[in-house]
Amino acid sequence: MRRKEDLPECAVAITVSMIGNKWKLLIIRNLISRPWRFNELQRDLKGISQKVLTDSLRSMEADGIITRTVYAEVPPRVEYALSGLGESLCPVIEEMRKWGLMYQELAQ
Amino acid sequence: MRRKEDLPECAVAITVSMIGNKWKLLIIRNLISRPWRFNELQRDLKGISQKVLTDSLRSMEADGIITRTVYAEVPPRVEYALSGLGESLCPVIEEMRKWGLMYQELAQ
Repeated sequence: MRRKEDLPECAVAITVSMIGNKWKLLIIRNLISRPWRFNELQRDLKGISQKVLTDSLRSMEADGIITRTVYAEVPPRVEYALSGLGESLCPVIEEMRKWGLMYQELAQ
Repeated sequence: MRRKEDLPECAVAITVSMIGNKWKLLIIRNLISRPWRFNELQRDLKGISQKVLTDSLRSMEADGIITRTVYAEVPPRVEYALSGLGESLCPVIEEMRKWGLMYQELAQ
């Protein structure tokens, strides 16, 4: 997690600084249902580069939002999942889902 | 507003495609309380360039989220405000605010 003194003052800005970009929001959307592997995420998120996916996952792990679990198999399996803190972001994603549905209905 | 055929299938992705970046989220946060002028927004959003602010406001206007009102004064006054559709994004921002407050309390 980040240290208190490294956080913006505004609570909205704290959240925005951690998940305020397209890819992180879509990664969280995916992880809500189950843990995902790196390659699965990359296939699903059309247009994301390996570097941006790696950087996004690392910073979300550092911020305490996701966990990275390595299973000692051959070849090793690595899975990303929401942490408890990450799961508490569900209401943000659910409000986005509701709004998107409404926009979809209004659009011609 | 965007046309139905230009929208992603996933409802979360629709919202993310419209407001899934740092600056747009912070602009909406500001406009929730009252209309703002361009220069006010630029002063408040530390680090945003004139071009990025202009582009963000234009695309949010095109998406039907904000309105741009020109008052016939000398010099003309231009104000940006949330539209009805933009106001319906308040629950997204409020969930972000709640999560940010929780993170702030957990951080050391």
